[in-house]
Amino acid sequence: MRLLRLLATGLGALVLLVAVGGIALLLGRAAYVSVWDPEPSAEGAAAKAAYLADLPEVDPATAPSFVVIYFDDLGYGDLGAYGSRSIRTPHIDRAAAEGTRFTAFYAASSVCTPARAALLTGRYAPRAGITKHVFFPEESAGGWVRRVAGWGNALPADEIVVAEVLAAAGYATGMVGKWHLGGRPGHRPRDFGFASYYGLLWSNDMWPLHLWRDDAIEQRDERRGGFWRGERDEERPLGAGGVDQGTLTAAYTREAVAFLEANRERPFFLYLSHTAPHVPHYPDMAFAGSSEAGPYGDVVEDLDRSTGAVLDALDRLGIAERTLVLITSDNGPDYAGSPGGLRGRKGEVLEGGQRVPLVARWPGRVPAGRTRDAMGMQIDVLPTLLELAGLPLPRDRKIDGRSLAPLLVGDSDASPHEWLFYFSAFGDGLPEAVRDARFKYLRETGDWGRSRGHLTRLDLDQENHGLARKHPQAEERLAGALEAMRDSLRDNPRGWRDAGGG
Amino acid sequence: MRLLRLLATGLGALVLLVAVGGIALLLGRAAYVSVWDPEPSAEGAAAKAAYLADLPEVDPATAPSFVVIYFDDLGYGDLGAYGSRSIRTPHIDRAAAEGTRFTAFYAASSVCTPARAALLTGRYAPRAGITKHVFFPEESAGGWVRRVAGWGNALPADEIVVAEVLAAAGYATGMVGKWHLGGRPGHRPRDFGFASYYGLLWSNDMWPLHLWRDDAIEQRDERRGGFWRGERDEERPLGAGGVDQGTLTAAYTREAVAFLEANRERPFFLYLSHTAPHVPHYPDMAFAGSSEAGPYGDVVEDLDRSTGAVLDALDRLGIAERTLVLITSDNGPDYAGSPGGLRGRKGEVLEGGQRVPLVARWPGRVPAGRTRDAMGMQIDVLPTLLELAGLPLPRDRKIDGRSLAPLLVGDSDASPHEWLFYFSAFGDGLPEAVRDARFKYLRETGDWGRSRGHLTRLDLDQENHGLARKHPQAEERLAGALEAMRDSLRDNPRGWRDAGGG
Repeated sequence: MRLLRLLATGLGALVLLVAVGGIALLLGRAAYVSVWDPEPSAEGAAAKAAYLADLPEVDPATAPSFVVIYFDDLGYGDLGAYGSRSIRTPHIDRAAAEGTRFTAFYAASSVCTPARAALLTGRYAPRAGITKHVFFPEESAGGWVRRVAGWGNALPADEIVVAEVLAAAGYATGMVGKWHLGGRPGHRPRDFGFASYYGLLWSNDMWPLHLWRDDAIEQRDERRGGFWRGERDEERPLGAGGVDQGTLTAAYTREAVAFLEANRERPFFLYLSHTAPHVPHYPDMAFAGSSEAGPYGDVVEDLDRSTGAVLDALDRLGIAERTLVLITSDNGPDYAGSPGGLRGRKGEVLEGGQRVPLVARWPGRVPAGRTRDAMGMQIDVLPTLLELAGLPLPRDRKIDGRSLAPLLVGDSDASPHEWLFYFSAFGDGLPEAVRDARFKYLRETGDWGRSRGHLTRLDLDQENHGLARKHPQAEERLAGALEAMRDSLRDNPRGWRDAGGG
Repeated sequence: MRLLRLLATGLGALVLLVAVGGIALLLGRAAYVSVWDPEPSAEGAAAKAAYLADLPEVDPATAPSFVVIYFDDLGYGDLGAYGSRSIRTPHIDRAAAEGTRFTAFYAASSVCTPARAALLTGRYAPRAGITKHVFFPEESAGGWVRRVAGWGNALPADEIVVAEVLAAAGYATGMVGKWHLGGRPGHRPRDFGFASYYGLLWSNDMWPLHLWRDDAIEQRDERRGGFWRGERDEERPLGAGGVDQGTLTAAYTREAVAFLEANRERPFFLYLSHTAPHVPHYPDMAFAGSSEAGPYGDVVEDLDRSTGAVLDALDRLGIAERTLVLITSDNGPDYAGSPGGLRGRKGEVLEGGQRVPLVARWPGRVPAGRTRDAMGMQIDVLPTLLELAGLPLPRDRKIDGRSLAPLLVGDSDASPHEWLFYFSAFGDGLPEAVRDARFKYLRETGDWGRSRGHLTRLDLDQENHGLARKHPQAEERLAGALEAMRDSLRDNPRGWRDAGGG
């Protein structure tokens, strides 16, 4: 009786809450729609075409090659070189020992799509109009919601992607893995400078999840239904309908090594963008149970094997000494994965949401066994690669990134940034936090009783202790920088520059 | 216009949500009321009286004295001896160097009232019927809610408090500071064995907040109104209506030292239960801005000064070598304060909610510079003190704690516990997690996509990586222990034993 009554009242409350939640959601939609929504720009497209046409050819004898290995939702604390004791990553650890390890390197957003846009364009994601969480397949419920809400769902064609620049300058370019920057024709990897593509356009918890090769579907996702199929459950049996996620990392690795073998004679850019360790976790049978960190850890150990295979291929092909390899992640850990003692996780602008590992390996150029504590961000990848290739930056638009070449191959340990900005998963598209060399400032923490500005010292503390009263000048400085950036992104979100530059 | 529309829709949604929230709260009340609510027990009271009457007198020449210094919401990472780099605690660090530091010691709950009940009774808080968050002053809104809901609001008189046992055996007993175990006559510190009392019966963010001396109010809280007066705001000017919280730690310290001076000639038990660093934070003027951890850190540095004064008094009075000092905290950090890299905070059953520092200092008895990694909990304080004093435990009721004396003064580094149980702030009064020497198991994590059992290895990882599939036997063992404890607390919450013991 008592149990029945409890159940009935509980159910009643639930039904009422869901009904009202729905109404509130509809009412709130107007408020949630972005206050600015960029139009495609004819001028931007024309300037992009002119920039690419004007690029010099690189000298194939001296131009360095680049491999960017991008993990999905790998936490700051989940590599041996970054303190993990439950996951073995000997190959990545060796790369760190042979190269340089960064301790204050950031994804440019706390979730996938904006982080990827920033990595490839050298610009904060709102400049590409990416402000509303992540893109969804058009056929899915998420895609429908985005269409109804009027939120963009693909990288605008007028954006300049690092692969386009390098391809125009004579590089062989290839992408393997997760794109997550749109699925419509004209917005896939081959439309943005990658000569070859093999992988999943979307996140591995999305539907439908076709496996693509270049511009065609190689393996169609035959599953019926949508997103909610228990795919987030780590404990279900291995394997799944559609693409076999258990062997995906191995397949990516084969494709990546084949790309290196095919392009060994010329400068190349390989973007190996792993689908893992994003949920759901389907370890390769060879790794099921191998780690002490559950299916997530097993998947990371498989990623380490993959990284070892890529590094071995570079060594075997005799091209390691002309190839810079960057190994990093697109944001902090989701519910599984370790932020390594940082506060916060994926989706948040606390450090755990955006600080990620960066290992750089380039035998003979990037010094071995070095640690860099200066701050950098994935917006720096495009400027860094372009500087190392001797190519000019676009001048018609704001490039937020700065070259890290002096930190990689030079003696500088100073960050090229005065400020770095943080972007949350559910924000209004404007940055919600900022850091400088020492302090960090959050506009809103969301905590009960501490909703206003939260100033902390990153050199002494992990965002636990508010210091606004102790360091009012620092608060003023950082709050001012954050508001100025927010204003600038409101006024000129795409960052177009006047004809004269500026 | 657009702003107005946004504002209007936002307000509309808010009003609707609040209204529905209220209805849901009322509907949900039946479900939220505890499924069991202990009755006062005449048998328990009689057994308590008999136990206390039968206790032997200790030998004043040899019986050790005890000082328990209890901080409020101090995080695991907020002492120098526990890794803080932003707060200076030289006196506590020195005590740790002169004594033993525990790395796996726990508060018995993730919030104040149940943690305190467990500390003083040696039993998990539900045994005292304390299952619904924390107690509130009867005059306040919180007290009204508890009365309406039928939740207890004071420690039952039939519970046996460590001060009563020691007093009955001839100890001088005194309490200074925060009680938080009830305010009604018959339920204050002097009703539970403390011969003297000076302090606040409630939490420093509650109203009204009278300062008591023994059984009378020494300074009345003259403020009008209730709880919501911005008291959680660290940034407001120093000082407040009512008790001057800025000088409270200093006042407590004077009272504590006076107690030591008055009782230097005999065995004593001093419970110095600080009001700080619980919110709101009002640093002493001598410490305002002293730390690099904001008002919270300033308050902790004041607590360190206080601890130094107590230790100095013991040295000066020549009684340090017959006095065991225990320094610990009632739960993990609230929104301010550092969990020291642990996952979770106050109110949660993740480690950051319950794991706290424990420093034990007893020159000549507790070895200097030792670290203990074996797990212990504040339920162990009563059994430990009683063993060191040579006194028997009550036998009419379950005592969950075990003596830590072998770890303190002996050579054992083995925990006396096979299991320790965790209690959240908003649970049903039954434990929600369990650990053994190596594993930890949460029944529910509340995370999206990971709501079932979460098994982790505490020796390798901070609760990030689920290992149920890797270690199914461990999961079965821990889940079984947790369910058995839940069943036992359902069947016999107060833990009464049959006449024969058992």
